[in-house]
Amino acid sequence: MKYTLEKEDPSGARASRLELAHGVVETPIFMPVGTAGTVKAMPPDSLRDMNAQICLGNTYHLYLRPGLEVIKNHGGLHGMMDWDRPLLTDSGGFQVFSLEGLRKIDKDGVTFRSHIDGSSHRFTPESVTEIQETIGADIAMAFDECPAATAPHKYHLEALERTTRWAERCLDARTRPDQAMFGIVQGGLSKELRAEHAATMTRMSDFEGFAIGGLSVGETTEELHDMTRYTAPLLPKDKPRYLMGVGTPEDLIVGVGAGVDMFDCVMPTRNARNGKLFTNEGVVVMKQARHRYDMSPLSESCPCITCTRFTRSYLRHLFIAKELLVFHLFTLHNLTFYLQLMRDARAAIFEGNYENWASETLAKRKEAAEKDALIPKGQKS
Amino acid sequence: MKYTLEKEDPSGARASRLELAHGVVETPIFMPVGTAGTVKAMPPDSLRDMNAQICLGNTYHLYLRPGLEVIKNHGGLHGMMDWDRPLLTDSGGFQVFSLEGLRKIDKDGVTFRSHIDGSSHRFTPESVTEIQETIGADIAMAFDECPAATAPHKYHLEALERTTRWAERCLDARTRPDQAMFGIVQGGLSKELRAEHAATMTRMSDFEGFAIGGLSVGETTEELHDMTRYTAPLLPKDKPRYLMGVGTPEDLIVGVGAGVDMFDCVMPTRNARNGKLFTNEGVVVMKQARHRYDMSPLSESCPCITCTRFTRSYLRHLFIAKELLVFHLFTLHNLTFYLQLMRDARAAIFEGNYENWASETLAKRKEAAEKDALIPKGQKS
Repeated sequence: MKYTLEKEDPSGARASRLELAHGVVETPIFMPVGTAGTVKAMPPDSLRDMNAQICLGNTYHLYLRPGLEVIKNHGGLHGMMDWDRPLLTDSGGFQVFSLEGLRKIDKDGVTFRSHIDGSSHRFTPESVTEIQETIGADIAMAFDECPAATAPHKYHLEALERTTRWAERCLDARTRPDQAMFGIVQGGLSKELRAEHAATMTRMSDFEGFAIGGLSVGETTEELHDMTRYTAPLLPKDKPRYLMGVGTPEDLIVGVGAGVDMFDCVMPTRNARNGKLFTNEGVVVMKQARHRYDMSPLSESCPCITCTRFTRSYLRHLFIAKELLVFHLFTLHNLTFYLQLMRDARAAIFEGNYENWASETLAKRKEAAEKDALIPKGQKS
Repeated sequence: MKYTLEKEDPSGARASRLELAHGVVETPIFMPVGTAGTVKAMPPDSLRDMNAQICLGNTYHLYLRPGLEVIKNHGGLHGMMDWDRPLLTDSGGFQVFSLEGLRKIDKDGVTFRSHIDGSSHRFTPESVTEIQETIGADIAMAFDECPAATAPHKYHLEALERTTRWAERCLDARTRPDQAMFGIVQGGLSKELRAEHAATMTRMSDFEGFAIGGLSVGETTEELHDMTRYTAPLLPKDKPRYLMGVGTPEDLIVGVGAGVDMFDCVMPTRNARNGKLFTNEGVVVMKQARHRYDMSPLSESCPCITCTRFTRSYLRHLFIAKELLVFHLFTLHNLTFYLQLMRDARAAIFEGNYENWASETLAKRKEAAEKDALIPKGQKS
């Protein structure tokens, strides 16, 4: 992997280029999430049409289903899902540690039960590295432990130590020179722990990039933004920075301002399926009665098919009637919105104008939300 | 509407052209069903890409949801669903009469309760004609009664009389010269009634075409084929013939041989959603274990994206994981198959070779089904 920092805005926001095995990624970037080897309801052509540059796959989910044998047969995830551009896989750590009651941690790894059929499995730093090499993503993530932000301090210390040791073992287990690997900085909501762990992790100079993990797991927006602003600058300037599992458009704008380059989140895709659409004019909740006769597009300013070909009135009909097409159209729109937001951020960085752009964009979004709050409840039912 | 019979094969199979308000339809044709103003899981661009020439909308469903006010705002169904090619709407008769226990028939029409919210509504020949004019399809269907094939003879006689009287009233109520209207021949499984009703209906020369209704409602395949072969030739040669709600690939091949021009059925779209795929090599049931490691395409001979970009192994994974993408990919394939089948039939008719083509195609399909039956049960679980 080759990383080029193209421009640093006075605010600290960065524009950069990642040259990966399957192509170039220009940051700041949002990465659509394709958990099980598909971005839900999105044919790969639709992702290409909207200029998605990189997608995510999920190690835990792909390992369980369809399983490594199937992925191996396809020569990796790229060929299996017809995605010829860069891919990133998370390490499965987050999913495994979320299996409260179904997993047991020891110093070498985690034994867990499948959420699908209850079968028993084991992840170690070595096995997770091997699995990710089989999946063949352009970027693999080190196997980390992501404790709840509310866990006792003592537990956080133990978890950090494990994450550090496992990171070293992941690096040792690597065999694919065409696959980059990112380390993950944990530390919950403690600045002290974040600083310590960032220092420890970034000493492992074989990592091609670093991620901030363990956020967007229940803390307040203020805590998330505060911790992002604190941690991002602790990461090396000459490597990509990735804020995992984050977030709202607001979170991305703040994250870019803090010097983060890469984001992923299920929010645009999951909210789409629930009829919640992101626009420059605020969030549109499609089930609301006020859209029933609304002949305007979902968003006046969006170039996607959903906005240029259909009315809110028709889109609401599809949503109320639970028509399958709506999952595609809404996902298409929300991802278009997220990708465009990051392209706009990149343009602002190149203009040296990120701080202005960010505060204006945030103010506009806040205004739209406040206006929305004034709409009578009856029109929203 | 202008109808041109381009070629009649010695077997009776016909190739023809319908010039409609929104374009030309070349027959034999299969019409994808878009019940609620969308062909399930199919963006209109995908339908255009596969050269779908005409789609169906459902009067009963569209009237209840989104309702006429919404459709009127869009200037009709075409604009609402972004479909610029021909549309046909059924009259809603079939749906209303299926609401056993929720509807009451009198001589002027039917009072019924909505399957969505239980609200009370009334269809008359006049109201159904007006609704279809509002929807604005290129072809409207007369309001008919479709009794169960098993209903007593006396009931069939009454229903036929109502259907005849209502057909006259539909013709009288028409006001749109750009919308064709087809009459519907009923008569259950009685050749006597079919002959009588065909004679009565075809005397109404204002109809631009005629349909065979009341089949594919529970009778055997043999009865369906027999009644199709009997009834189709009773319809005028110089007008299009439409076999409603039919059917399997075999049914279509037999129907074309009987002189039918147009077909619609939920089978390709509904079966797609259930993981049952039509191919030249027989029906593929995607959940079967034997596809788990199968690196071959769904169909070697199919040019659709589903077959050219993905393996059975991946498609089965998507189906087992209930991934939304699969509904799109499978529907795309099944509709491509049905449209191609009718294009092949049309080519055979122009070659004066329909009978040979049909018997070869049917034989190949039968052979594939027999081969499939020999596969051990364990591989199908």
